[in-house]
Amino acid sequence: MKRQDYDLPYLLRYENVAWYEDGQVSILDRRIYPIKKEKVVCRSYSDVTKAIAEMVTQSAGPYTAVGMGMALAAYECRKESSENQINFLKEASYNLANARPTTANRMSLITEKSFEIGKEAILKGENPIEAIRLDTIDSLNRRYSTMENVAKYLVNLLSSDSAVLTQCYGETIVGMLLRLAKQEKKDLKFYCAETRPYFQGARLTASCCAEMGFDTTVITDNMVAWLLENEKVDIFTSAADTITENGYVTNKIGTYQIAILCEKFNVPYYVTGLPDIGKKDRDSIVIEMRDPEQMLKFLDIKITDKNVKGIYPSFDITPPELIKGIITDKGIFKPEELSGYLKNPTKFY
Amino acid sequence: MKRQDYDLPYLLRYENVAWYEDGQVSILDRRIYPIKKEKVVCRSYSDVTKAIAEMVTQSAGPYTAVGMGMALAAYECRKESSENQINFLKEASYNLANARPTTANRMSLITEKSFEIGKEAILKGENPIEAIRLDTIDSLNRRYSTMENVAKYLVNLLSSDSAVLTQCYGETIVGMLLRLAKQEKKDLKFYCAETRPYFQGARLTASCCAEMGFDTTVITDNMVAWLLENEKVDIFTSAADTITENGYVTNKIGTYQIAILCEKFNVPYYVTGLPDIGKKDRDSIVIEMRDPEQMLKFLDIKITDKNVKGIYPSFDITPPELIKGIITDKGIFKPEELSGYLKNPTKFY
Repeated sequence: MKRQDYDLPYLLRYENVAWYEDGQVSILDRRIYPIKKEKVVCRSYSDVTKAIAEMVTQSAGPYTAVGMGMALAAYECRKESSENQINFLKEASYNLANARPTTANRMSLITEKSFEIGKEAILKGENPIEAIRLDTIDSLNRRYSTMENVAKYLVNLLSSDSAVLTQCYGETIVGMLLRLAKQEKKDLKFYCAETRPYFQGARLTASCCAEMGFDTTVITDNMVAWLLENEKVDIFTSAADTITENGYVTNKIGTYQIAILCEKFNVPYYVTGLPDIGKKDRDSIVIEMRDPEQMLKFLDIKITDKNVKGIYPSFDITPPELIKGIITDKGIFKPEELSGYLKNPTKFY
Repeated sequence: MKRQDYDLPYLLRYENVAWYEDGQVSILDRRIYPIKKEKVVCRSYSDVTKAIAEMVTQSAGPYTAVGMGMALAAYECRKESSENQINFLKEASYNLANARPTTANRMSLITEKSFEIGKEAILKGENPIEAIRLDTIDSLNRRYSTMENVAKYLVNLLSSDSAVLTQCYGETIVGMLLRLAKQEKKDLKFYCAETRPYFQGARLTASCCAEMGFDTTVITDNMVAWLLENEKVDIFTSAADTITENGYVTNKIGTYQIAILCEKFNVPYYVTGLPDIGKKDRDSIVIEMRDPEQMLKFLDIKITDKNVKGIYPSFDITPPELIKGIITDKGIFKPEELSGYLKNPTKFY
């Protein structure tokens, strides 16, 4: 398959997500982009796990990073016996998948596939490093291609001058939405909620939208109600970290309250992504509580005084009643009607 | 009157708000506190105007700063003829009051009073500088004392273990609430919304609450819905930059959406402050649109990429239907029943 990252903004090109080469994985440090364009170089799969846990990359970035991390694991154990290599890869698969609890489900689908690819290569006497690396790129191509299908349905919802409110950084879907809208010459206007504490909206989504030539305005997270009341906003859209089979959506902290505000102002909220098979309902979602020190700081500057505490839920859960539609690669579903999708789901990772 | 800033946190003590002495006004730089404790030294009233416009101080800080600025204006023109001194003070009164558009109404009440005090002293051959300075301290005492009365009604609403959500930095009311709650040994828990873009909640309100010994947790502005759903929050309270006669409340950007979210989660929102006589309805409110560059930065670090725009409404307007009560010095009024207060209002500035 042709590489699917053509004509996409800098952040979406494969080498700038996570990339294995010559015994190391380079991961673009999304915590600081675009203030600085730096890559974190990982020389072991444990470094990759650590980088994911520390949110060097986020959104869909970790899915690429764990695949490339599996290639690196294969490199690390290349001089061992076949049995030891397979055991090492099995362990790497588990550790990489569990770098962050909320997404362990999806991550393990990727690392287990990489494991199987690596194991097969080892047993056949082929190069497991290259096999895993190529398979990861294949996965990227399939994911980008699947998300392009999702983006088609989203772009169809938009008129030639729609104003779109975004939250956090939806990565692939953002890139595909922008590429398609540009191809179709839709003159979209983007409002990007900055998305504290890491400002992914201000730094990542807004950078992509502006790089692709669209009118792009960042708002602080507390301007949403003001924006919806005072400016024309046609649609709110976000990606999802989890979509349960019954239509609950886990996404970056802040999504839930934007959805509530959109309901108040009659702006429809569309989620993009594929339902997570096996995640039955909201009880199956684990919300990762991160170290509060991380949200009391920005760029290593501590904002608060001594004795002030923080709290840091990474994600929140939006219930189906606040969601107008879930946009999948096979069309748009009401959140309570995902069973229609689940009869014939796409397994894109 | 005894100085009313006893037993208050650092930020509320008069010398740490704005203070005239020996031909200069020192204003605590609230943009950077508590990261750094720095004061901006103004050697002309125009410097004070500039400092207010640049938000060196905010909330009630400007009310003190303009009074002290008027004392400084009197110092600047001290060698002129009486007529010239009076003209200079008149001009200073106008310029100081209009440093920021949204609060010009309240500010001019203060500067006009300072003007009259100064003029009277000049015509009597007395020292206008000291007269204005002492009158400004008197005003501070009266305001603190009035806000202590407001705080009594607020504290009465709280049980011994209430959890209180705050927005931005209400200054005097925050100090008085904390002093009274401490006196009454109420073991309050505070959640402070960080309040982008200047983080007044994280830096100022949270510092005061923690300094006074209360359990204090900062949340980012996008965690409000999560907090209200997952933690015990008994009340949301904020001060106001304007309260119209028919119950519309202007306050720091973000207040409106917290009020909407509180309605959703059945948490009552109480506004503290005195209605603005003459501000009939929401049409009489001017929302200051500030330079967007200011919200695309933090501590002079530009967060966004080139070609990304920002938007920066300083305030938003919360309608009466989202407000459970407006807490004044004469009791708690429903926002649509402020006429009861306005029959016999307190003029505290």
